[in-house]
Amino acid sequence: MDTPVSGKLPPAFIAAMRLRFRDRYSDSAAVRLQHGRDESAHAPQPPDAVLFAEDAEDVVAAARLCDEHGVPMIPFGAGTSLEGHVLAPQGGLSVDLSRANRILAIRPQDLDATVQPGVTRKQLNAALHDSGLFFPIDPGADATLGGMAATRASGTNAVRYGTMRDNVLGMEVVLADGRLVKTGSRARKSSAGYDLTRLFVGSEGTLGFITELTVRLHPLPEAVSAAVCSFAEIDAAVRTVIETIQMGVPVARIELLDALALTAINRYSKTQLAEAPTLFFEFHGSPRAVEEQAQTVQDLAAANGGGDFAWATRPEERSRLWQARHDAYFACLGLRPGSRALATDVCVPISRLAECIAATRADLAQSSLTAPLVGHVGDGNFHLVLLCDPDDDGETARIHAFCARLAERAIALDGTCTGEHGIGVGKSDYLESEHGAVAVAAMRAIKSALDPKGLMNPGKIFPAG
Amino acid sequence: MDTPVSGKLPPAFIAAMRLRFRDRYSDSAAVRLQHGRDESAHAPQPPDAVLFAEDAEDVVAAARLCDEHGVPMIPFGAGTSLEGHVLAPQGGLSVDLSRANRILAIRPQDLDATVQPGVTRKQLNAALHDSGLFFPIDPGADATLGGMAATRASGTNAVRYGTMRDNVLGMEVVLADGRLVKTGSRARKSSAGYDLTRLFVGSEGTLGFITELTVRLHPLPEAVSAAVCSFAEIDAAVRTVIETIQMGVPVARIELLDALALTAINRYSKTQLAEAPTLFFEFHGSPRAVEEQAQTVQDLAAANGGGDFAWATRPEERSRLWQARHDAYFACLGLRPGSRALATDVCVPISRLAECIAATRADLAQSSLTAPLVGHVGDGNFHLVLLCDPDDDGETARIHAFCARLAERAIALDGTCTGEHGIGVGKSDYLESEHGAVAVAAMRAIKSALDPKGLMNPGKIFPAG
Repeated sequence: MDTPVSGKLPPAFIAAMRLRFRDRYSDSAAVRLQHGRDESAHAPQPPDAVLFAEDAEDVVAAARLCDEHGVPMIPFGAGTSLEGHVLAPQGGLSVDLSRANRILAIRPQDLDATVQPGVTRKQLNAALHDSGLFFPIDPGADATLGGMAATRASGTNAVRYGTMRDNVLGMEVVLADGRLVKTGSRARKSSAGYDLTRLFVGSEGTLGFITELTVRLHPLPEAVSAAVCSFAEIDAAVRTVIETIQMGVPVARIELLDALALTAINRYSKTQLAEAPTLFFEFHGSPRAVEEQAQTVQDLAAANGGGDFAWATRPEERSRLWQARHDAYFACLGLRPGSRALATDVCVPISRLAECIAATRADLAQSSLTAPLVGHVGDGNFHLVLLCDPDDDGETARIHAFCARLAERAIALDGTCTGEHGIGVGKSDYLESEHGAVAVAAMRAIKSALDPKGLMNPGKIFPAG
Repeated sequence: MDTPVSGKLPPAFIAAMRLRFRDRYSDSAAVRLQHGRDESAHAPQPPDAVLFAEDAEDVVAAARLCDEHGVPMIPFGAGTSLEGHVLAPQGGLSVDLSRANRILAIRPQDLDATVQPGVTRKQLNAALHDSGLFFPIDPGADATLGGMAATRASGTNAVRYGTMRDNVLGMEVVLADGRLVKTGSRARKSSAGYDLTRLFVGSEGTLGFITELTVRLHPLPEAVSAAVCSFAEIDAAVRTVIETIQMGVPVARIELLDALALTAINRYSKTQLAEAPTLFFEFHGSPRAVEEQAQTVQDLAAANGGGDFAWATRPEERSRLWQARHDAYFACLGLRPGSRALATDVCVPISRLAECIAATRADLAQSSLTAPLVGHVGDGNFHLVLLCDPDDDGETARIHAFCARLAERAIALDGTCTGEHGIGVGKSDYLESEHGAVAVAAMRAIKSALDPKGLMNPGKIFPAG
């Protein structure tokens, strides 16, 4: 593993950081390496040093020093990003916010909570136990809320509850020069000025550090039930989803998995699910509403040739089912022991989904690649887990070429090169294809306006040059 | 009425505009005056000339000429804004987009539509007739969708369907120098780069002209029912709303009107509603879901001392009820014939709503002002229709002082100085109170980055100086 010796930081900066932060500042090789990689297949690029920040005051102090000495800054949460967001291609200081993990307020009457950025979604939901409320955004990993906001994360519940874009009411952000910005308020809606909250959500740490968030909470549904239903063909499953959405059935989750993903899950999770294209459903509401929703969807599935629904109504059955879904990534890895996985995602209008998936599967076959498909199909979003032998350069090259075609295919179908993983270092080549040169120029102008020295998470989002 | 003679525009600009646009370019006093005011009480400030643009190409050509000659540009839709957004304090060119009113695509499978900015919400809903879909955002006035996006409009349905922020998928925007930007895509969600769509939504024409929008559509509910319920005290009504939201009942509309507003409505709309604090409800869903929602809310209202529900289930009854609600503004004017009205809005966390309303009513009484209250109470948003004798300078001064206190009160309660009307020229004094100096500096930096010459709708949002 490549861990270049630190030594690029100005001695005056190092001295000031040590004086201010003592042993919360580290430049040990192990700590640096740990902060130089995420869950993606991108090659690690360690920072020159790491600060374990505990609050906004720490971040302000660090940002002022970085600004003064021209040191790049990389926000770090749980390290669960999937496009190399935490890598340090220009070195600099990784600011680990995982210790800034206090829940500052939970307000049941207003259905909101204010947290530090290092609070994870599971931690918040544990704290909400007995409140009758929950935080729905669920990207799979137990990511920090700061990281989830920074990457505009979503996940299985987004079809009903929205993404981080919809569930962050306001934030506190430290800019590159150490100035502290408050965005939004606790009002549910506002027409007061530019929507800085939405600008920082999804900015991937390139505009500032999120040091506090106020997020929306949702009432726990009175009843929940889950089911799986398999289909002979993916098209029929997608048609069922389109009709479900068009009828306004407020499903909480609709996930599509292809036959290969089911094979992987059965092996890994010891389930006996049909190894065919399958929809996973979850319904939330009153007992009557859940029953009614389920009946409507069952009728639609049957009309599209779907099999019987296999129900999981008890909490432990449901957990087992969704755990199997969430373990799909690891299950897929198990399909070819010793392989690594490259996870990629795109999102298209739902009317183009079947077409996009069909073309993509043909491309996979032609490229001799193995990649189970799992998708948040209610949003038109799907993921591929591309299995990769790290020692096979040919396969790696084929995967990269395939991913480029997939991104361009999604864009050509009026979609996006990433529905929820973000651009990071992995997808900056497609930014201009998707948005056009003027939009990218506008994004760069905003970046320069807020971070004129280019110190915030350099090398991310924007293509080099 | 003050209509300064035009003559501030450079002759070369006028000549080029006339050559390009012929009689679609006008500097007649009548046309200018018509474009120098909106539905607010702000004194008219006419532009020097008006262009009736029909498409993006027109706007690009006009923006290039304005950029070249340093002429301010003011986007104009239906003229229904409420904070002076279309006024021309520095003169310049008003670009009327009401003739750019083609519906470019309706895609039932994807639940979206692409329209030119001059399409009004009623026009879009008429075109959706028989599609089983509708566009829910309803600010009362038949505003253009471009104007609604520019002011981040919402209205009575927002509690269930969100605001323009949530319902615009993507846009085409012409920047001040004539460059054309595409934002977003038709994918339901994306993590690809900065959220320019949300930046332009609510930017009040200060960053560019919206020349095309793709908006979300929603399935028409199978069943709809509406009801009114009166309460002895506003607090009890607000408590009912809080409990409704907390239980997760997906009400489509919950509106609060105070006793004075009911008096006004009864007189104007010839209704016989109880002249007491009243909630207007609308429920959307399957027949069973609607019945169940309504029962839950009735139980909550009864427990809070509410009266019996008066139902309106047939479409014509419902239309009559909501027409009465929508006519509240004109009804309020009728309370004091000859008066003008100043409509203002604030939005607070719902837990602070009763407190905010109580303090506001006390303030009204102490200020000897008459102002019925109507509110989108599910969002914590309420409006006052302040009746004003234009010849009474003392009353006008008291109204302005009252509005300032109201805005600061909402901000102090973690809310916003405007939930849906926008800042315009009327509320720029509160921008910094609400967001802080650094956030306003960040907004200004973004404005300068995208409109370095400051030609787009100058004098709006930002306080002078």
